[in-house]
Amino acid sequence: MTSRPLDYDNLNDNVKKCQYAVRGELYLRASELQKEGKKIIFTNVGNPHALGQKPLTFPRQVVALCQAPFLLDDPNVGLLFPADAIAKAKHYLAMAPGGLGAYSDSRGIPGVRKEVAEFIERRDGYPSDPELIFLTDGASKGVMQILNATIRGQSDGILVPVPQYPLYSATISLLGGSLVPYYLEETANWGLDVENLRQSVQQARYKGITVRAMVIINPGNPTGQCLSEANLKDVLRFCYQENLALLADEVYQQNIYQDERPFISARKVMMDMGPPLSKELQLVSFHTVSKGYWGECGQRGGYFEMTNLHPKAVEEIYKVASIALSPNVPAQIFMGLMVNPPKPGDISYEQYIRESKGILESLRKRAHIMTDGFNSCRNVVCNFTEGAMYSFPQIRLPPKAIEAAKAAGKVPDVFYCLKLLEATGISTVPGSGFGQKEGVFHLRTTILPAEEDMPAIMASFKKFNDEFMEQYEDHRGYSRM
Amino acid sequence: MTSRPLDYDNLNDNVKKCQYAVRGELYLRASELQKEGKKIIFTNVGNPHALGQKPLTFPRQVVALCQAPFLLDDPNVGLLFPADAIAKAKHYLAMAPGGLGAYSDSRGIPGVRKEVAEFIERRDGYPSDPELIFLTDGASKGVMQILNATIRGQSDGILVPVPQYPLYSATISLLGGSLVPYYLEETANWGLDVENLRQSVQQARYKGITVRAMVIINPGNPTGQCLSEANLKDVLRFCYQENLALLADEVYQQNIYQDERPFISARKVMMDMGPPLSKELQLVSFHTVSKGYWGECGQRGGYFEMTNLHPKAVEEIYKVASIALSPNVPAQIFMGLMVNPPKPGDISYEQYIRESKGILESLRKRAHIMTDGFNSCRNVVCNFTEGAMYSFPQIRLPPKAIEAAKAAGKVPDVFYCLKLLEATGISTVPGSGFGQKEGVFHLRTTILPAEEDMPAIMASFKKFNDEFMEQYEDHRGYSRM
Repeated sequence: MTSRPLDYDNLNDNVKKCQYAVRGELYLRASELQKEGKKIIFTNVGNPHALGQKPLTFPRQVVALCQAPFLLDDPNVGLLFPADAIAKAKHYLAMAPGGLGAYSDSRGIPGVRKEVAEFIERRDGYPSDPELIFLTDGASKGVMQILNATIRGQSDGILVPVPQYPLYSATISLLGGSLVPYYLEETANWGLDVENLRQSVQQARYKGITVRAMVIINPGNPTGQCLSEANLKDVLRFCYQENLALLADEVYQQNIYQDERPFISARKVMMDMGPPLSKELQLVSFHTVSKGYWGECGQRGGYFEMTNLHPKAVEEIYKVASIALSPNVPAQIFMGLMVNPPKPGDISYEQYIRESKGILESLRKRAHIMTDGFNSCRNVVCNFTEGAMYSFPQIRLPPKAIEAAKAAGKVPDVFYCLKLLEATGISTVPGSGFGQKEGVFHLRTTILPAEEDMPAIMASFKKFNDEFMEQYEDHRGYSRM
Repeated sequence: MTSRPLDYDNLNDNVKKCQYAVRGELYLRASELQKEGKKIIFTNVGNPHALGQKPLTFPRQVVALCQAPFLLDDPNVGLLFPADAIAKAKHYLAMAPGGLGAYSDSRGIPGVRKEVAEFIERRDGYPSDPELIFLTDGASKGVMQILNATIRGQSDGILVPVPQYPLYSATISLLGGSLVPYYLEETANWGLDVENLRQSVQQARYKGITVRAMVIINPGNPTGQCLSEANLKDVLRFCYQENLALLADEVYQQNIYQDERPFISARKVMMDMGPPLSKELQLVSFHTVSKGYWGECGQRGGYFEMTNLHPKAVEEIYKVASIALSPNVPAQIFMGLMVNPPKPGDISYEQYIRESKGILESLRKRAHIMTDGFNSCRNVVCNFTEGAMYSFPQIRLPPKAIEAAKAAGKVPDVFYCLKLLEATGISTVPGSGFGQKEGVFHLRTTILPAEEDMPAIMASFKKFNDEFMEQYEDHRGYSRM
């Protein structure tokens, strides 16, 4: 048979080159094992409901009513739904002519975008313009849209933290651009050093790359750190000086597990800094209904807000969004509900607060159990998860383990994670999927398994790890201090 | 201020180049007029619910229950939901661990993909493999995924019908590929001529373009024709001879308004033709929950099925799909329900049949009212809408109208459609947005306004058109016969 257009060899090279480890080799192997009947704990992806987190009741009631608007005319509706959910469903249906089955404007329903703008204003203390807010099918789709508008070819570079969430590396590959890495400092709790940034940009320019934008993930994925205001100021000043757009991935802004550094948005810090920076620096911020205490991943809802973009550029981004017609409408309602939840005095307020606080407090406990668990293991060191949903322990692999990996044709951390999976059913992502310094190894796991299961999972991890180390260690020292 | 990364001038040229007329100048002007209080009839996009079509009751009941699974434990649930909807909700929730709030596999929920495969087998009489079926956020997203895998650069060409649905031209521009047009013959009821195809491919090759795939839209958008089995055989043979993959956009397969040529899938015809073609030709077929009698556009649900793709190529497409994690889960349930609707004997069967038949019969009547209406207008000729959701009349613009358009700096059909919009509130899309032969002008309108409103809309159109022609005609003949 001749070589055909959709044969592997003939596919777009950018498609073949891109890597997305969160659903890579480890995930595929875990899926296989699950099919064979093994119990798998999927901690490879921040997917809270899949690990048993219950959805918040109120938003589900509202969206269920929006899906079945004929229930609103049923005299029995009050037996199943509280009055404020009924009122909210009517509120959103009035905004969405044709209901959930009609395409909305490609930027999303105007009324929901207005609620997002009001949320941003309450959060940051500065007004926000709904015309510069686009709703998306999850934050990832928004990031892809903005990178697509930004990247013109191979010599366009995007500054991305290492370790990073591989959405960035994969999308940059797919779009044929260049990833310009900047390293986060593990020993400084994954802090960000401007001197380091400057060097990365210089090195890239030396190679002929035009650095166009910088990505920050705050709170960090996979690293879990929360950026301080001072750190954000440094980043903003740096972007301004170097004429970079800043892409602020702030999808974990509700997920904070310490009190010293509450979440502060890049936009607020930028506005606080005043002109010329606040008037000129181009910033795009991303948010989602998938994370926080919502965890509504499967709904695929998100938004991005653009600051200091000219209407002509916004129009281009709008045009491209319109090719796929509209983000899914049910998730737009979830986004409206997330930024405009029940208020004190509403029938559902107490329940909403109880449920959301419960989730967040439990996540905080789990972050501690997990960090402490990892730090109790042989050759494992782990920074505390200050925010987001992940733990990213460093695994100090002995030279003999690295040799064994090589012999098996595996990257060392992939080798370790596969063994972990086979032994315990815990499905993680090797650090190499996120980027790490040469010769240093990690894994990423979510902190999402149910709180009551956590001690057993960490005990199972410790047993595996310590036996692994026993097997491969030469008892003369660590592979790396 | 210096030129900044996200200023218009610095954006990706492919983004700037792409055009998407369905939500282009006409739509933007219509949105403005609506804001100013004018009543607009949005017939620019196939968005049935926005024009008053009621959703089918049963699928909405099922998805509402899936959104609010706690209702399943409520003793009153039977007062609002029929037992078969409750059973179906349990059926789908059992397939989706974590429910609608959890990311599914990036290809979609395995159980739903199995139901899609069973539907294809019932429809075509040949088995279908769920592993080769990917669920998507609407068919458009699927088309974009496949074109992205196919197009490697500017010298890769995709054969696209003219007139075409601009998803194709826009996506090919965005991906930096080349559109290779083949013309549909208006006087032969938008038929497709293989000789014409062959010429298009030869011309493209002469320019150094590698033609990689051919798109068919059946039933046609914007042209409304239904391809015959003989025509499909010609196309398949042609693709096989020329080593092209066939991309079959079959999203309107439920929308058929004549009895001579029922829908027949490209896959069935290909399988009927037997080897080597049935074993070798690479085919990707697209479907959706947005069209048919469902019209669930806002849910964003679709699938594509790949035939004769090697697992290694499928893996690459899977990998790229996984970057955005998963298609939205509620729409996956809609897809399951669409391919596996209530059966005779089910409580909801009668209602489901009544509702779906009602919609389809009304669409058939509207197709006739509209075609007849257009053909009663001065200088307008229109083929009957055999299928899909559109009417695509040719508007024979007098030379004076063409001059007036030029003077106003507008493409002639844009000029006409803008005048139509201002005079009547009818928001259409100029034929130039879909492609047409040089000097020939059209517009596209959906056949979706409510049946009872149709006579008034067509009267309003006729009044505008005939006055327009009166104004611009020199009373010595048409601009074109």
